[in-house]
Amino acid sequence: MPIPAKVLQKTSPDSPFQVATISRRDPRPDDVVIEIRAAGICHSDIHTIRNEWGPAHFPLTVGHEIAGVVTAVGEDVTRWSVGDRVGVGCLVNSCGTCAECEADQEQNCLNGAVGTYNSEDVDGTITQGGYAQNIVVNEKFVCKLPDTLDFDVAAPLLCAGITTYSPLATWDIKPGDKVAIVGLGGLGHMGVKIAKARGADVTVLSRSLKKADAAAALGADRILATTEEGFFKKHRGEFDFILNTVSATLDVNAYLGLLKPRGVMVVVGLPPENQELGFYALIIGRKVLTGSNIGGIKETQEMLDFCGEHGLGAEIEKIGVMDVDAAYERVIAGDVQFRFVIDTSTFDDIAAE
Amino acid sequence: MPIPAKVLQKTSPDSPFQVATISRRDPRPDDVVIEIRAAGICHSDIHTIRNEWGPAHFPLTVGHEIAGVVTAVGEDVTRWSVGDRVGVGCLVNSCGTCAECEADQEQNCLNGAVGTYNSEDVDGTITQGGYAQNIVVNEKFVCKLPDTLDFDVAAPLLCAGITTYSPLATWDIKPGDKVAIVGLGGLGHMGVKIAKARGADVTVLSRSLKKADAAAALGADRILATTEEGFFKKHRGEFDFILNTVSATLDVNAYLGLLKPRGVMVVVGLPPENQELGFYALIIGRKVLTGSNIGGIKETQEMLDFCGEHGLGAEIEKIGVMDVDAAYERVIAGDVQFRFVIDTSTFDDIAAE
Repeated sequence: MPIPAKVLQKTSPDSPFQVATISRRDPRPDDVVIEIRAAGICHSDIHTIRNEWGPAHFPLTVGHEIAGVVTAVGEDVTRWSVGDRVGVGCLVNSCGTCAECEADQEQNCLNGAVGTYNSEDVDGTITQGGYAQNIVVNEKFVCKLPDTLDFDVAAPLLCAGITTYSPLATWDIKPGDKVAIVGLGGLGHMGVKIAKARGADVTVLSRSLKKADAAAALGADRILATTEEGFFKKHRGEFDFILNTVSATLDVNAYLGLLKPRGVMVVVGLPPENQELGFYALIIGRKVLTGSNIGGIKETQEMLDFCGEHGLGAEIEKIGVMDVDAAYERVIAGDVQFRFVIDTSTFDDIAAE
Repeated sequence: MPIPAKVLQKTSPDSPFQVATISRRDPRPDDVVIEIRAAGICHSDIHTIRNEWGPAHFPLTVGHEIAGVVTAVGEDVTRWSVGDRVGVGCLVNSCGTCAECEADQEQNCLNGAVGTYNSEDVDGTITQGGYAQNIVVNEKFVCKLPDTLDFDVAAPLLCAGITTYSPLATWDIKPGDKVAIVGLGGLGHMGVKIAKARGADVTVLSRSLKKADAAAALGADRILATTEEGFFKKHRGEFDFILNTVSATLDVNAYLGLLKPRGVMVVVGLPPENQELGFYALIIGRKVLTGSNIGGIKETQEMLDFCGEHGLGAEIEKIGVMDVDAAYERVIAGDVQFRFVIDTSTFDDIAAE
């Protein structure tokens, strides 16, 4: 039987969130039903539901940083039991058979992965995300939360955590490596924590030193202001690895100049405009410029295990379901340290429209 | 005692080449004296001596694709003996102690490698290149030529060979990989041969199909015209690896679209302008964009051994020392298949000015 779920929903980009009741699908044999305890607010949610990444499918519920508890399992489910503490990230399905799926890179599925919201599901419906009381997900796209992390600080790991963990793991960041994290928001703050836990020497690059205390509290070895006179000359050739988490246009050639020979810069933030790149900045010293998009399910589990082992939860501000419109304004203004997380138990107090 | 050498020299960017006699340095204990038998003409020679890469030091002799025979060795030389067939490429010295030199990446020497010409040498003189009868080089910057290759077809390997071999080796191109070589000039033709010898499936990407016969003769599996209607859509996601050897502005985003997820594009050609790059083209599918500059001495030797084993000489047009001005015009017009090589024995017939 379909399962009712109170959700936060928008019916258009400009309307406020409202609480509605939708039906989650009748669980298939390989599905898991999850009662959601916490849902992080990712900037992607805002871009999507404001039509900034193209027209969204309304009415829509967003949210892909989901932490909760398994409340039911389909008859073929082998990996999960009722009561398991689990997470769901940006993906809820993929073909499972293409070269990318076989390489545990479901996010690159050649036949099109199914996103957790605003995506066409295998049954033709549009997926609805995690600002909700529950969700029904194929068991393969569920990950185990570490026992050491609460639901609220674990939820953001499912997007912000894996987005920063994956490039640091892919490029094998290790003790002694000099790592720069550009930007100290939802992604950047997890980048600092994870890079530090891998043993790197971590520098935050920010436009100003306003976040100096926060950077230190997160474990960064230092913070540098890129607007400082002569900054790019002074720090030329200093880093092995740069993780750029900002979505604004930047001077790519200058940032590549901060790398040592054979250094790597990974971008995970997506400015809307084309950037200017001089090939000399890649050729001299053989610099690598690449991008990264979340991570596969196997690596997401590896990230959760790593964060559990090192006690790395997100730094969060917890809000109720009625606070999300205001939280969006604050995210856009950069006024959050470092992630809003919705306490989905607050749905209980609210009548759906 | 200093060693006299007839050389081809320009006294200004616009003057024609003239034959002059210069003095090579009195060999130091770790130097090798090489009688040059063949010298390739690289487009870098033209850029340099025409001041297209900044003001050159005149009078200047260029040439960094050098093949010859050892005629004398300093008292501390252990690696070479009189009579050895050897090559010299783009580098004639480096600090030997920095992290890059220790990693056999002398081309990235943090204290500044010494180029074979137009570069300040350790004694403060300006290095003079290989369009010459002889050269005196530190033994560490000399490589052994394979017995199976003549001097003339081996000379271009010292730049065009290593420039294309190094990225193919660095990114571990192996049997079955789908490799695209962009451009079929001096670099591109060696890229095709080396990629094919590594077992890859090789496609030449060219503006037209004019070089179809040449591509086939070099062993390419196919040639495609990038100007064909709908080309970038039709071949989307097709390649594991793209080696871009052209120095012209190109649609980087479109080329990245030709890569499979996690594919790699290496640029070795240097267009003077900044290129336009959308970060989405890197993030979606985690594409890698990087550059490569020649290669270290150890890898240059590895490349020569590989080319010897597989019988991979350059395709050349042999010219005399008096033909170089005309050859430059033909290189600029793209009218060479695929490398001009100067037969330096022709110096013997000419009186120096």
